[in-house]
Amino acid sequence: MRCGVDIGGTNTLIGLVDENGKVVDHDCLKTSKYESAQDLVVTIAYSILRMAKVNGHVPIQSIGLGCPNINPEGRVEKAANLKFRCPVSLKDELLRYFPETPLFFDNDARAATLGEAVYGSAKGLTDFMMITLGTGLGCGIMSQGKILQGTNGMAGEVGHSILVPGGRPCGCGRQGCLEQYVAAGGILRTYTELCKKKNETIRASEYRDVADLARQQDETALQAYAETGKILGLALANLVCFSAPSHIFLFGGVAQAKEFLLDPTRKAFEENLLFCYKGKVRIELSGLSDSAKNAAILGAAALYRQA
Amino acid sequence: MRCGVDIGGTNTLIGLVDENGKVVDHDCLKTSKYESAQDLVVTIAYSILRMAKVNGHVPIQSIGLGCPNINPEGRVEKAANLKFRCPVSLKDELLRYFPETPLFFDNDARAATLGEAVYGSAKGLTDFMMITLGTGLGCGIMSQGKILQGTNGMAGEVGHSILVPGGRPCGCGRQGCLEQYVAAGGILRTYTELCKKKNETIRASEYRDVADLARQQDETALQAYAETGKILGLALANLVCFSAPSHIFLFGGVAQAKEFLLDPTRKAFEENLLFCYKGKVRIELSGLSDSAKNAAILGAAALYRQA
Repeated sequence: MRCGVDIGGTNTLIGLVDENGKVVDHDCLKTSKYESAQDLVVTIAYSILRMAKVNGHVPIQSIGLGCPNINPEGRVEKAANLKFRCPVSLKDELLRYFPETPLFFDNDARAATLGEAVYGSAKGLTDFMMITLGTGLGCGIMSQGKILQGTNGMAGEVGHSILVPGGRPCGCGRQGCLEQYVAAGGILRTYTELCKKKNETIRASEYRDVADLARQQDETALQAYAETGKILGLALANLVCFSAPSHIFLFGGVAQAKEFLLDPTRKAFEENLLFCYKGKVRIELSGLSDSAKNAAILGAAALYRQA
Repeated sequence: MRCGVDIGGTNTLIGLVDENGKVVDHDCLKTSKYESAQDLVVTIAYSILRMAKVNGHVPIQSIGLGCPNINPEGRVEKAANLKFRCPVSLKDELLRYFPETPLFFDNDARAATLGEAVYGSAKGLTDFMMITLGTGLGCGIMSQGKILQGTNGMAGEVGHSILVPGGRPCGCGRQGCLEQYVAAGGILRTYTELCKKKNETIRASEYRDVADLARQQDETALQAYAETGKILGLALANLVCFSAPSHIFLFGGVAQAKEFLLDPTRKAFEENLLFCYKGKVRIELSGLSDSAKNAAILGAAALYRQA
């Protein structure tokens, strides 16, 4: 069996995948609880060893690990949404426990992109984009059937393109990054700002609350999604100018707001699209998004194919 | 010999290239004088036949044609900077005169990118971006040694990413596109706006005049380049987040303003770059920019290599 590990800003998922692409076992850790990469990796290692044992002492054919800002050599120089002391080599840490297992590393967004291509809605597509919306905004770009890597594996950091010069402060140390407007924290902030403007009681202290309020048809929460969709739709229309994909898939915790976010995003997207792309690019939810945990695990496990 | 044709918003260049990459003959037409693609193509055809004849009746091995918004099948659906009635198939038109010559078509920006890779400063580079600054802003993206094409060959239209929602009107029918701020017409407009603001006489009626004034150290013209550089530097820093190139080459008429534009662009670029790219991406003038005409011809002639 193959192992997939997805280190996100909030959760770290570890899973065992059989040859039919089924996640047969998994664990979930709170990433932010681990102050050092060493502590996190030791827990990941024991989780893998446990799963291998309880599932009939299966051999682990490969471990694929997806993580923000990691390069294909398993090194994280600095990551805006992780608390680790960087730079750190996750490969060196994992090798202590799995010296003979083939190890593969990539950006969590690129791993998810590969998961969509192999197991999801992007089967057979050669040009598509995966936008992961969670704690941050990640992006995987498939062009002519290959995932863009860029120098040092640093392609796809579009969450940190500057949307508003001098705007909201970002974990990267700069201001006005796209993800500060359209990822979880950004939506919470937009909701809070709207409440203050309208002199309303703020009923959300974390992103999840805004999502709950929207489901209860709270007007201000719905308005926060509407404003977010306007910004996201324009941003995606601009991204299309770059690699001209046929599809954009939205993935991750925030994408699960579904129509609250999707409807205004699609509207702003079409309005802002350059003539030559109009009506030709589809925005869809990830085909794996109903089982977000599995999708991240499958993407990471599929990394062995990209090598 | 091979033939390269570059159709730009202002000029159309036609050249004959020998096997050592030397442009042995060329012609230049004013694109805007031709109201229909048919009229332009017939003149291009006679120019090629003339050059072949006067250069010792050489056989034409291939014709490569670079043109805004063209797809690899030679079809132009609509082009913001051309006066042609669209859609039109330039391949069908050229085939009337050269039914047996291999014909290759691509975006003018991608042709220039290939020219840079084969004959210019990008020899041996696998990840770089070519920004063509002239009547419009074009972009060619080389990633892992391949030029991005995108669906229907429509990758790289970043000149039409929306920088300022509701901003300056653009030939594409929308408002606030990047090229309206950093290409020739945008710089002229910035200069004009600065003059009005400062209650100064406007001494430029076309882009060329602003370039001349800057060379004469005119304060307002220099200020126009400084403001343009600020916008361009930020835009390029955002583009880096996409494909993580090691180099960005500036090419075309506006790039020939050299330090007036390059210095403020590099400054704003470094200031706005995400931490993981800082100090790692170089902005350079095209290695072919001293002979812009030859570069465009060589790029178009080199299109046979991409096929």
